[in-house]
Amino acid sequence: MPEIRKDIFSNGWVIYSSKRSGRPNDYIDGDVKCPFCPGNEESTPPEIFRYPAKGKWQIRVVPNRYPALVEDEKNFYPISGFYEYMRGYGIHEVLVETPSHGGGFETFDKKRIEKIFEIYSDRYLAIKKEKNIKYVMVFKNVGKNAGASLRHPHSQIIGLPLIPTTVVNEINSSKKFYTKTGKCLFCETIKNEKKYSLRIVAENEDYIAFCPFSSRFFFETWIMPKRHESIFEMSGRDFSHLADIVKKVFGNLFFSVPDIAYNMIIHSSPSGHYDFYHWHIEILPKLASLAGFEWGSGFYINSLKPEEAANILRKRKKFVQE
Amino acid sequence: MPEIRKDIFSNGWVIYSSKRSGRPNDYIDGDVKCPFCPGNEESTPPEIFRYPAKGKWQIRVVPNRYPALVEDEKNFYPISGFYEYMRGYGIHEVLVETPSHGGGFETFDKKRIEKIFEIYSDRYLAIKKEKNIKYVMVFKNVGKNAGASLRHPHSQIIGLPLIPTTVVNEINSSKKFYTKTGKCLFCETIKNEKKYSLRIVAENEDYIAFCPFSSRFFFETWIMPKRHESIFEMSGRDFSHLADIVKKVFGNLFFSVPDIAYNMIIHSSPSGHYDFYHWHIEILPKLASLAGFEWGSGFYINSLKPEEAANILRKRKKFVQE
Repeated sequence: MPEIRKDIFSNGWVIYSSKRSGRPNDYIDGDVKCPFCPGNEESTPPEIFRYPAKGKWQIRVVPNRYPALVEDEKNFYPISGFYEYMRGYGIHEVLVETPSHGGGFETFDKKRIEKIFEIYSDRYLAIKKEKNIKYVMVFKNVGKNAGASLRHPHSQIIGLPLIPTTVVNEINSSKKFYTKTGKCLFCETIKNEKKYSLRIVAENEDYIAFCPFSSRFFFETWIMPKRHESIFEMSGRDFSHLADIVKKVFGNLFFSVPDIAYNMIIHSSPSGHYDFYHWHIEILPKLASLAGFEWGSGFYINSLKPEEAANILRKRKKFVQE
Repeated sequence: MPEIRKDIFSNGWVIYSSKRSGRPNDYIDGDVKCPFCPGNEESTPPEIFRYPAKGKWQIRVVPNRYPALVEDEKNFYPISGFYEYMRGYGIHEVLVETPSHGGGFETFDKKRIEKIFEIYSDRYLAIKKEKNIKYVMVFKNVGKNAGASLRHPHSQIIGLPLIPTTVVNEINSSKKFYTKTGKCLFCETIKNEKKYSLRIVAENEDYIAFCPFSSRFFFETWIMPKRHESIFEMSGRDFSHLADIVKKVFGNLFFSVPDIAYNMIIHSSPSGHYDFYHWHIEILPKLASLAGFEWGSGFYINSLKPEEAANILRKRKKFVQE
């Protein structure tokens, strides 16, 4: 059973999960027999969802065979002593994005991207309703530097018994800003970015993509809905404009830096009264490793300013590192 | 001129320094002409300190040729608009630990380790006195996975115009604990660790080394003075017990996991009234890459519990990953 321990110095949390270490790794072990390719469906636990429902599948959702957290019949209970910890309760699913062993948002057709985001949203809502789940995170790892273990295009959806530190920080900042100004910190950021245009990568009727002012990573890009929306909840809505901007952002990113490793994370409001929050997608490319300075300080060093990064991406220029 | 920008969402800081991108890299470019080997002294900016003062040097301190932050004649000034940023003022030095191109704390003789820590302490105090420096961080990167760029054994000392987020978090937690209990959070942690012994790696009269309860990384190990001391200020003191435990901890770590990449960071109190703080050394090995889960949540996933890690290190067992 995994365990979640609180860091008494940073107030962060660490999940201990021995199941994670057994998972196959294309990047370390050489290409393994791919559990996500058609014909190997028995390598994954029984399917949660498939699209289309009949005939050959195009997209599948399955439980993660090497979960960070596990569902448990018993109630989970936090225990407090000098140290604090709790049972590693949670839900961990994998979304297989395509029957093909390669590709990604940069190559998928628009219809596939729409369907992937629609399923993200459906699974997000379904897991959010489960008992004791406080937060649902949709994320994706591509490439060795981004910590991926399998090459076959896939995303992960995880239901957590705690609200992540990153989201708590964003909630605190946006709450403080809202209390002070009566405005949404994210909406004001969009307004500010549109005023100068320097960091904008792409924009359409409903969405804007930009390299944030304090980008931690080369080519870090955030995608945000232009209307104020707290929760990534899009059931029954049109995903066309979202798919358009995702395809454009990744198309440009992979044109500028072919085969770039990246993490993508959807940040959304937890359940509860967080109307001042604004959901968004963070794309965090991984060109460099973090070093002692970052680990020691919690600060980041970046040698490419977001204004330059956005200029390269917006104009679809090839990136040449000096 | 580097720039330091505030992240309005996380309240963290990002340093933009284009000078960093030009630095040579043994791991990417193949072995470069080593700027730290004897005979190549002209590759570094003029020396700040050498030991011994006369004859062939054993240890050198030089300004970092590719600094993250730079000294500046002008006053630095924070500017606030919708976004906050400031000039990238700071001091960035390199300590070359040996004339030899290889080795480390796991192979150095005790006298060299004593001298290195003595110079850390001297430079720490000297830089701390500089105008507008709010914090001095001593750190070290070893191996590609830990973000090192040069193989020749070296450490870095950086003077920052801000207190790092990690230290602010530790200050807040230990202040809260002190206010509530009248005790030092770190001293109480030592007491608790000694009670169960499960996570202790090494101990002598003055220092204790253990894998913290909420270790983020495989074999993460902290070294702490057993007496309550807030500041890493050891001028004129005996470094013998510190060198002993450093040599033992790294000796065991490299025996268990040969050639392991790691970051080492000395955490110390900033100038001011932080008597409730307790300086310590954090050794953060890097066996796995962080992935989207960690970037998205700020939580960590670790598949080796600190109790198992400490047992392997304490008993000098070879580590075999499952």
